[in-house]
Amino acid sequence: MENTKIAVIGGDRRMLFCAKAFLSDGYDVSVTGFDNLCENIAVKKLPLEKNIILCDKVVLPLPCIKGEKIFAPYSENDIKCTEYLSALLNEKTVYTSMKEKLLENFPALKEENVFDYSSREDFAIQNAVPTAEGALSIAIDNFEGTIFRSRCLVCGFGKIGKVLSKRLYDMGADVTVSARKQSDLSYIETQEYNAVNTYEIKRELPFDIIFNTVPALVFDAKTLKMIARNALVIDLASLPGGVDFEAASLYDIKAIQALSLPGKYAPKFAGEVIKNTIINMFKEETG
Amino acid sequence: MENTKIAVIGGDRRMLFCAKAFLSDGYDVSVTGFDNLCENIAVKKLPLEKNIILCDKVVLPLPCIKGEKIFAPYSENDIKCTEYLSALLNEKTVYTSMKEKLLENFPALKEENVFDYSSREDFAIQNAVPTAEGALSIAIDNFEGTIFRSRCLVCGFGKIGKVLSKRLYDMGADVTVSARKQSDLSYIETQEYNAVNTYEIKRELPFDIIFNTVPALVFDAKTLKMIARNALVIDLASLPGGVDFEAASLYDIKAIQALSLPGKYAPKFAGEVIKNTIINMFKEETG
Amino acid sequence: MENTKIAVIGGDRRMLFCAKAFLSDGYDVSVTGFDNLCENIAVKKLPLEKNIILCDKVVLPLPCIKGEKIFAPYSENDIKCTEYLSALLNEKTVYTSMKEKLLENFPALKEENVFDYSSREDFAIQNAVPTAEGALSIAIDNFEGTIFRSRCLVCGFGKIGKVLSKRLYDMGADVTVSARKQSDLSYIETQEYNAVNTYEIKRELPFDIIFNTVPALVFDAKTLKMIARNALVIDLASLPGGVDFEAASLYDIKAIQALSLPGKYAPKFAGEVIKNTIINMFKEETG
Amino acid sequence: MENTKIAVIGGDRRMLFCAKAFLSDGYDVSVTGFDNLCENIAVKKLPLEKNIILCDKVVLPLPCIKGEKIFAPYSENDIKCTEYLSALLNEKTVYTSMKEKLLENFPALKEENVFDYSSREDFAIQNAVPTAEGALSIAIDNFEGTIFRSRCLVCGFGKIGKVLSKRLYDMGADVTVSARKQSDLSYIETQEYNAVNTYEIKRELPFDIIFNTVPALVFDAKTLKMIARNALVIDLASLPGGVDFEAASLYDIKAIQALSLPGKYAPKFAGEVIKNTIINMFKEETG
Repeated sequence: MENTKIAVIGGDRRMLFCAKAFLSDGYDVSVTGFDNLCENIAVKKLPLEKNIILCDKVVLPLPCIKGEKIFAPYSENDIKCTEYLSALLNEKTVYTSMKEKLLENFPALKEENVFDYSSREDFAIQNAVPTAEGALSIAIDNFEGTIFRSRCLVCGFGKIGKVLSKRLYDMGADVTVSARKQSDLSYIETQEYNAVNTYEIKRELPFDIIFNTVPALVFDAKTLKMIARNALVIDLASLPGGVDFEAASLYDIKAIQALSLPGKYAPKFAGEVIKNTIINMFKEETG
Repeated sequence: MENTKIAVIGGDRRMLFCAKAFLSDGYDVSVTGFDNLCENIAVKKLPLEKNIILCDKVVLPLPCIKGEKIFAPYSENDIKCTEYLSALLNEKTVYTSMKEKLLENFPALKEENVFDYSSREDFAIQNAVPTAEGALSIAIDNFEGTIFRSRCLVCGFGKIGKVLSKRLYDMGADVTVSARKQSDLSYIETQEYNAVNTYEIKRELPFDIIFNTVPALVFDAKTLKMIARNALVIDLASLPGGVDFEAASLYDIKAIQALSLPGKYAPKFAGEVIKNTIINMFKEETG
Repeated sequence: MENTKIAVIGGDRRMLFCAKAFLSDGYDVSVTGFDNLCENIAVKKLPLEKNIILCDKVVLPLPCIKGEKIFAPYSENDIKCTEYLSALLNEKTVYTSMKEKLLENFPALKEENVFDYSSREDFAIQNAVPTAEGALSIAIDNFEGTIFRSRCLVCGFGKIGKVLSKRLYDMGADVTVSARKQSDLSYIETQEYNAVNTYEIKRELPFDIIFNTVPALVFDAKTLKMIARNALVIDLASLPGGVDFEAASLYDIKAIQALSLPGKYAPKFAGEVIKNTIINMFKEETG
Repeated sequence: MENTKIAVIGGDRRMLFCAKAFLSDGYDVSVTGFDNLCENIAVKKLPLEKNIILCDKVVLPLPCIKGEKIFAPYSENDIKCTEYLSALLNEKTVYTSMKEKLLENFPALKEENVFDYSSREDFAIQNAVPTAEGALSIAIDNFEGTIFRSRCLVCGFGKIGKVLSKRLYDMGADVTVSARKQSDLSYIETQEYNAVNTYEIKRELPFDIIFNTVPALVFDAKTLKMIARNALVIDLASLPGGVDFEAASLYDIKAIQALSLPGKYAPKFAGEVIKNTIINMFKEETG
């Protein structure tokens, strides 16, 4: 497998770190679209066409499309979604994020050759780590007390909720986690956190810091008023999020929408996660 | 709900702790079958018939049946599975362990009135805590080194595997956890443990202590020979377990079958878990 | 003790939090020097003279003196170090930071009435918590990977080193701690970190993030070159610090001088620490 | 240094593990006094006289003397404290435990050649780890609930108190630690435990499990009555200990004297600690 030739096309610094991670795993990697990055990137550069023709597998960036082009902020030339590019890609296996959006922009692309790394569970689980670190940093920067001994609420016990609540607990916070399923609530208690049913969150005592991970309007005006009057609220849920920001502003509650933290706080790790996930996909194909 | 009258019938000291836990939650509780326990039990005792007739809900023990009778080691008289008892129970809601075995012994019992607390996920999750503590104690007592800096393998990342690997890691062990699903393996790594696919466990380096939680023969002769030559092996999986004990004996490997740890190491907690689970069941009924 | 009247004179928002913390402990508190702070401060304000005359104990800020005046950035009027103020203070017990500097500016102040909270060990220990949190935030913001699985060096195992290394370890870093005394090195190992003698730090493998807490030039050009070529270096030691920043710049190593983190990252906690420390001093006086 | 010839004389299985640990560090090791141990010990055996004459450094066991002889439970012949043995030892550097007792039994021994590993701080610090593990095991075995969510008191924040309180906290206990110095109390709070002054321990709420590490009568009848009525009490302090066992028995409190835990629970680790400590002594001599 290590002789596999991989072409990384476009993307921001995450994709460069992804390319380097493939390289240190022994793969033969070339990149396209990093002409304007003023650093010694230590990976071979090739022009678009040549890179795709010579490779076995193509890796497209996260996000894959921006403004109807392949996302490539460091590229000298736009990488447009042409029929010719589509034909080139059809000869290879393609690993991409946001597969549906890619197919919209390349209608002639053979769907069965295209695999989405960003929709996989192992991808999301690994990204929970940098997301939790970014959320911690935001909390430390914006809360006037310490995380230590603060009363924190983590709403949702999915991938991010699990890692984040552990980090907060380890830093000495008084951690409450909300969930809906009884088995989750029991598990939360074995982790030494306080457990509360998300439906009953309003009846809790006020908190110092509230982290939302649930993409549903849990923190409406009424709930904010009951438990967040002096709190810092950090919404980590993907859009449309779970916090009524207008109500927060009305009640003078500091509320922060925190999106795409892995790319912002840990581009190197985020790139390595893409590489790890694609390698897991390789294994499943051959395995 | 707190006016509910609860009759706890039979069982060992766990059921007494269960009764006391109901009592401190404000329920009206009476027990039957603790005549020979030489301690001040602080819970009201009633004769079998009276206890059932007066109560709203009956709690049967864990295990519920032993030798075709209700398990009641501290009872002066056997509690036999008579038709009359069956008729009494049919007037009430019954919470039991091992429902199928109960129904075998009471063929006239109305199945729709009988609920099994021992088959629920929240029951199993809570019991993972005393199971992990018991496993730790067995490891400390039987391993000649310390848990600290020992190389531990936890096979299986279910309820017990999750709690146990955290305990070992917190005590300074070098923890490897095996699982089969890629998403579990990714999650294991976010917890800072080493992850290994259960199928490839044979290729690992040798360990000092191996904890098995998987009820399938993972540790056959060949695997034991490869990774357990100087190890202590503790099998926590329910019968038939996951360790070839004969092979272990042949290779002079110390292997321990460790079953029913909550009752042995933490009867008070085990009783409280039964109470917690039944209260969760009450909540779901009333919705 | 709770009837004690306390006058808090000057300071930034930390001292306001300090005043509030005294208030919630039941003390009778008045502040001077917060005229220009545009928030409802919830503490009684009094003019300078009146505040001192009416109180039992005076609390001066951290830092106590700036530009030959009492540090009071939110005061409408400067609080000058006059003989009259000195005479007023001489009637009371005074709790201050940086006692020597205060006495320089108030030569007539009776030294035996003045107590320094900022030089105490319990003060420094409590402040290690917000210092560690601030250092974490700086590291998360400036390192391209995650703290998780990064190779971190904490130089020095004093108050800050102890808390910081625990935080890093709990976040999944590979933590090495340096110290000079054998008993410290043994203790470091019981905490599950790697231990290295500070004298031999040069021989270590390279690190991703280096935190210095030792106020001596440990990280000279040579050491930086050996172990920090691709590292982020964060110097937490009080001035003159322990890092050759010129050499770091020469080698293109990102090095950050991080001072006074409690006030910057957790002013509320920093104010509470001042209150806690002064209350400890009260206890020792009466005790 | 690795060419140094080391003679390990007497002792129980700890000393055998100590010898093996020297061996795996590359030293040339021979043992005397393990004739009756029925296992393949994998270390060279030599008769007493020859072993001492051929070696550079002699290691005596822990304890060193029992019944006026060198402690050697697995030796076929007693190792008596003769003048001849004294003369042999005088030609070498001797590493021993309990130096004073050795010198009493060998009055002709040159004191300046004899070094005590058991009185060193690094020895005590390392042994805190197996002591804490043994204490945990005793607590798990004897307490009817789980360590998880139990209310634990650790009396004393020295070497053992530090490691033990961390272990209990990590297992989910509600941990209170007592100490006398204000700086210790502040440090205890940064570790997220409850802090209480040892002098005021009587005023605390009752506990489930009490661990004493202070060799002074802290737990007299009155204190036991106040805070230990339903507790398990484990006394880890060296003799005479810190618990009034008669009073405990009178109040029907389960109290356990737990001594020499490293040797009982982790002989392998205990032997490695002796080796580590002696190597630290070597370094200091040459360093």
